Parts: sequence; C-alpha cells; structure tokens
Amino acid sequence: MLERRIPISVAEAVTKIIDKKGFGEKEYVTIAECQGRFLAEDIVATHDVPHFNRSPYDGFALRSEDTTFGSLSNPLEFEVIEELGAGMVSSKTVQKNQAVRIMTGTQMPAECDSVIMLELTKGFEKDGKKYISFKRSIKKGENVSFQGEDAKKGDVIIKKGSQINPGMKGVLATFGYAEVPVAKKPVIGLYATGSELLEVHEPLQAGKIRNSNAHMIAAQIARAGGEVVYFGQLVDELETSYRAISVAIDQVDMLITTGGVSVGDYDYLPDIYQKLGAEVLFNKVAMRPGSVTTVAALGNKLLFGLSGNPSACYVGFELFVRPIVRSLSFSDTPHLRKVQAYLGTDLPKANPFHRFVRTTLTYQDGRLEVVPSGVDKSNIIMSLAGADCLTILPGGTRGFQKGDLVETLLLDDQTGSSWPW
Amino acid sequence: MLERRIPISVAEAVTKIIDKKGFGEKEYVTIAECQGRFLAEDIVATHDVPHFNRSPYDGFALRSEDTTFGSLSNPLEFEVIEELGAGMVSSKTVQKNQAVRIMTGTQMPAECDSVIMLELTKGFEKDGKKYISFKRSIKKGENVSFQGEDAKKGDVIIKKGSQINPGMKGVLATFGYAEVPVAKKPVIGLYATGSELLEVHEPLQAGKIRNSNAHMIAAQIARAGGEVVYFGQLVDELETSYRAISVAIDQVDMLITTGGVSVGDYDYLPDIYQKLGAEVLFNKVAMRPGSVTTVAALGNKLLFGLSGNPSACYVGFELFVRPIVRSLSFSDTPHLRKVQAYLGTDLPKANPFHRFVRTTLTYQDGRLEVVPSGVDKSNIIMSLAGADCLTILPGGTRGFQKGDLVETLLLDDQTGSSWPW
Repeated sequence: MLERRIPISVAEAVTKIIDKKGFGEKEYVTIAECQGRFLAEDIVATHDVPHFNRSPYDGFALRSEDTTFGSLSNPLEFEVIEELGAGMVSSKTVQKNQAVRIMTGTQMPAECDSVIMLELTKGFEKDGKKYISFKRSIKKGENVSFQGEDAKKGDVIIKKGSQINPGMKGVLATFGYAEVPVAKKPVIGLYATGSELLEVHEPLQAGKIRNSNAHMIAAQIARAGGEVVYFGQLVDELETSYRAISVAIDQVDMLITTGGVSVGDYDYLPDIYQKLGAEVLFNKVAMRPGSVTTVAALGNKLLFGLSGNPSACYVGFELFVRPIVRSLSFSDTPHLRKVQAYLGTDLPKANPFHRFVRTTLTYQDGRLEVVPSGVDKSNIIMSLAGADCLTILPGGTRGFQKGDLVETLLLDDQTGSSWPW
Repeated sequence: MLERRIPISVAEAVTKIIDKKGFGEKEYVTIAECQGRFLAEDIVATHDVPHFNRSPYDGFALRSEDTTFGSLSNPLEFEVIEELGAGMVSSKTVQKNQAVRIMTGTQMPAECDSVIMLELTKGFEKDGKKYISFKRSIKKGENVSFQGEDAKKGDVIIKKGSQINPGMKGVLATFGYAEVPVAKKPVIGLYATGSELLEVHEPLQAGKIRNSNAHMIAAQIARAGGEVVYFGQLVDELETSYRAISVAIDQVDMLITTGGVSVGDYDYLPDIYQKLGAEVLFNKVAMRPGSVTTVAALGNKLLFGLSGNPSACYVGFELFVRPIVRSLSFSDTPHLRKVQAYLGTDLPKANPFHRFVRTTLTYQDGRLEVVPSGVDKSNIIMSLAGADCLTILPGGTRGFQKGDLVETLLLDDQTGSSWPW
C-alpha cells in the first residue's frame, strides 16, 4: 500500500527544524588550534591599537615647533640624542632642536609630536655628537600613528559566530587571546543504510555499489563545523536498524541516516521513527532532488533522514542540517548565502518542481554567472565534485534561458544568510 | 648610509620565485583523512557508473515489447515473479507478461529493458500469485539508468591539483579510492623577528606589541595547503638571528621570516642572506603594502622575508608564498583567482603606487562589488579580519569612483588563476 505524503515547502521545512535547534555550547581552544572554528563570543579590543603613539616610518622624532622656520633656504640642524629600535622606549627628555632616531613601529618619546623620514635628512657629526640637517618644516602630528587610531579599547572587532580566518587570528593574537572562546562542535552521528552498499575498499559486486554518501556527508559535516561520529553501514532490516539507531542517538547531539526514507518496501526509517516515538516534522519536501528528506525530533535531538541518492543526500544536508550546525556555532546567518547570478547557459526543459541544480560559479566582467557543473540527474554524483553553488530553479511550465537572473546558494562561502527563503 | 633598492613589478617578482619552485611530492592518506588535501594525480573512473543497468525508481521491471498494446481502454496484467531489494540480483528469467518488483538503485533483470513506476500500477493477487495491472505502454529504455550513463571507465573525473571537497570525496569513495594520492604538504618554517614582539599570553609593555604576524601567517600557510613549523621569535640581533635561521633552513622546505627586511638600522635579514650566501631574487616590489618584501634562494630552498607590518606581511604571503605552496600541490592554477568587480564606494584619493586593498565581496543583482573591509592603512590589521579579497588599484594621478570596474583577487576561493599578472 503506497503511503500518500503531503509535500511542504523548503521554507516551511527549514522553519520546523530551526524551531528545534537548541543551544550552542562554548569551549576554549589555544590560539594555535582556533583556525576554522566559530567564535562563541564577540571579540572585543582589550586595549587601544596602537596602545602608544608610534612612528610609522624610519626617521627622527622631534618637536614640530622647532621646525617652524625650516625651508630650502633655511636648513635646520638637530642634535640626535638617542637611537630607539623597535620595542625600546626613550630614557631621555627631548629638548629644543633635539631629535631621536626612531624605527618603524617604535613608541614616540613623550615630548615629540612628529617624525621626519630618514630619507629627507642628512646625518653628520660635530664635536663627537651626532646631528641631522633637513630643509623643511614639519607639521604637528606629521608621521605619527596615534594611540587608538586603529581600534579603541572596548570596540567589537569580530562578531560572534564568525569562522576564524587568518586575519582574525592575527586580531586575536594582537589582543592577547591565548585561549579563544569557540563553539563546541556539535557531534553528529552518521549511519548509511542500504543492503546494496559496499565499503570503499571492497571490490565491486553485481547489483552493489560502494558507499559514497557516508564519506561525502562526513566531509559536509566537517565543512559545516560539526564533528562526525561514523557508526557504519546498516543493511535493510528493521529490527537490527532500529536497535542500532536507538543506541546511537544517545551518543550524539543529532543523527543523520542516509537511505531508507522513501516509500519502498525496504525503506525502514519511517517505521523506526515510529518505534522510537519520534515526532516526524516532515517526510516530503516540494523540491528536487531530495523530496523524500525526512526529519524527526526525539526529545531535544533531531534525526535527519536524508535520501540514499547522493545528490539528494547532499542537498538535504546543506539545506536542513547545515543551518542547525551553524546556529549551534553561534551564527545568526546559519543558512547558505543566497545571491543572484546570471544563467550562463540555456536550460530549456521545463520542470514542474522547485529544483536545486548543482552549478559552478564563473565571473565575467563583474557579473556572476552559473553553469551546471555536470549532467544534472539526481543520481549523478560526478557533478557534485565540481559544484560550488546550488542554483534554485523554480518549478513551472517554461524552461530558462542564458542571461536569466536566478538565485543561487554558495556552498563554500562563510558569510551565510540569515534567512534565504 | 641608506641603501638604494630598485623596485621590480609584482609580475616580475612572482616570475622570479616561480622559476625556483621545485617539485611536489606525493603521499597516500586514507579517504577519511583526505578532505581539504590536494590531489596528486588525476582521478580516473575505475569502472562505469552505474556499473550495471539499474532502476532509478521504485517500480516493476519488465520487457517493453509486452506492453505495446497497453492503453486506458486496454489494461495489461503482469505476473510479479520476484521482488528485488537494493543490492539484490535477479535469480529468475523474466518471460512474456512477467515483471519483477524492483527498488530504486536495483540492478535490472537481464531480460527487462524498462521500468513502470510503482504509483502507475495496481497490485492484486490471483490463484496465490501476485500480479500488477496498468493502463499504458512502456517504451524500450524507459526509466532505466544505463551502465556508464554517469561515467565511463577511464574517464578523468577530477583533475590533479584540485582541493578535495565533499563531492569529490563521494567520487573517490565511489571508485574505491580507500587510499587517496595527495600532495605532501610543503613544510614551511616560520620565524617572527623584532625586539618589540611580545608573546600572545604576555601582558602589554610600553613600546611593545604582541606578535600577531606569526599566528596570522601560520593560518595562511594552513589555508594555502602547507604545514607550518613555528620556530618562535627572534630579537633584532644579527649573530643570534643568523645562527637560528641557518639551523632552521635545514629542517624545512622553505622558510618565512616576518620583519627585519627594511633598510632600518635593526633590519638584519639582508645581512643574514648575504652571510648565508643566499641569492637575493628581489628586495623591493613596486606595490603597497609590502614593498620591502624580500625573497632569496639558498640551494633549492626559498627564503621569504616578509614585512613585519601585518598587512604587508599578509599580502606578501598571498602573492609570493601561496603560488609556491599550490604549485608544489600539483595545481596548475596556483595563484589567487583574479576576477573583475565593481567598486562599491568612491576611493577618491589618488595614490602613485600599485595597491592591494583589503576588501569585502558583496553581490548586488548578479553584480560583484567590492568595498574596503576597513581603514586601509598598511599598519591596520583589523581590516584583514573582514577581507575576503584584495582589490588591485593601479597607481596613478587620479582616484577611483563607485562603479569603476576593477580587478580583485579572491582569498578563499579554491579555483585559482594560472597567471593573473
């Protein structure tokens, strides 16, 4: 007997999941380990940057008032009373017509308010003392980076939920974050189901294929910011699968299964959800691929029943699992970033379904273009290898033409969308 | 005495480095560990995909010739002689007006050339046997995924030098790559120089700043695909630095230092290169920031003397070190990907120098826009945190206006450019 399922929209499906998302947890890692992690707190400037007035150039610090009458016809002479390398601080008091040799990044002597660049001066000695001469006047503040010019103590420099990139790591170091508050990675269990599945190392057999979904999803979990616990493969047998899944749930924050969610005779996930007493949030989504994606909630844990079809599995993860992982990573833009792009090719065949087409971004003269990354049948994993975006083609009675402005979801972007639906 | 350095163009500088790049090495990692690594070989289909004719739907496999006269007014009846779950193969010979219940992904019985979808049939029993009826004819080949339809054995599926993403991992699993040939990560030594540097955990001191470059560069090395060996900080002292650097070189494939490459009294890297007998490829580049970037070659090893200024250091790495790391990772597009984008804001101030401005990508109606990611002074690290591209502004006597088409280099992209200069 064929079960009749009522499809809901992608937006509705995502809403139902997000409503159950729970809360992220914080942990501390060393700055050496923080790359690619998600900040659990806003990062605040712990001091002004620079935290002292400093010279941006190699040169001589002096008092600008002593240079007022300097000009081509009136060269000035200054005694050089000290030389400061980076990190050194002045021990002397600079007085009228005195200067201090100063390096890039060095703290200004207290009495000095400007710097003349090395290459504008001529050095000489007189009576065993060092001097410079130059032929110009210097303005107050000239060539000085003032305290707090780059950042003020207390400024929010990086927002919570950001994925830590090299520049951010530099900022964290600047402000002394030897330990960095990051989101604890949500722990995501993974079972691949299907009697047709071989392990990667096994030779092919008639009628069987190697399990590619588990490896693909493990990589998607890592990219999203989660930690995968791979439990292995399950054959299509209700009791064994039920027991394995009910044990697995206790060990993870959420559980993904691939396969077994359709209405076929060997699709046991619906029965398993029922037996577990899980609340099925939806079991059909108005989209291709991935229409059989099923999500259930058991207590505070989500069970994601992704399709066994590689492309449907891939899309299901990105639309439904990723936003949860990113929400638990303190992002307020947890969904794939949606942008507009021009279709780079004709896709003339009409399709009644809302589709997510595996596509590749190209850039032409400042325009964003998308072209299919391969043959777009839902059972073709090859095109996933080259996809860096999923282009949304609304269902309808007409196809699409090269140059049409369409919406696309960026797969590798870290900015995200707050709500792309 | 101020040394006069002759600046060379960015293109010339990159060429000099690329000429010395050497050769990448291959190693094998398990498929579980391969994510984010770079393929050392083209990945070839080890078999057809699918490797048997299979059903893309739940339904019944049959011989199309038996359905020729099926229509609304002439329903057909077929005996269901077997039921095949995914992974099972037929043990019977399908004869006239017989069908086999078949699941998504299942291998077709040899005699069958088409599938009727489950939902188009009505099942019933007669004389203890199972039957289906339906009211249409089926075309030869209808609802069959044929062997080799997705990929043919021997096809190159993923190119050497690609960074392994989730979709590629799925492809690798499909073709049985339990061990994956990847580029051995180039081992890159790192020393930060400068007496002004504090460690991240140290409290601030007058005139001193925390070492942010080492942490930033370590993250850039990881992003580029290298393995960092961080040797620590060196104070501005020639002999100590010389000894430390000469020992470090032997332990790595290439060495990065930050700081000490300018012409100041405490900039010892030029002396160290001379003492080592290294060939200085260049010590001045016509660009901002990073004009003092110095690169030297010692035997088959490159010594990258990056500026101590965080932004100059960052840009120097991306322009000069990254292409080497990616070349050694078998990429033939080792440089940052260059695309065109519209300037999203006025930058009216003219600047005589060829600049790399830290910018953020935005997308507006299918147009790519760039806006500065922060105050663009070369000593401001904050703007690096938000930068996802470096926009190239040619030097000249005029500024730039909102809407100008400019070139920009994408920092997080994995496609790369073969030669962007």
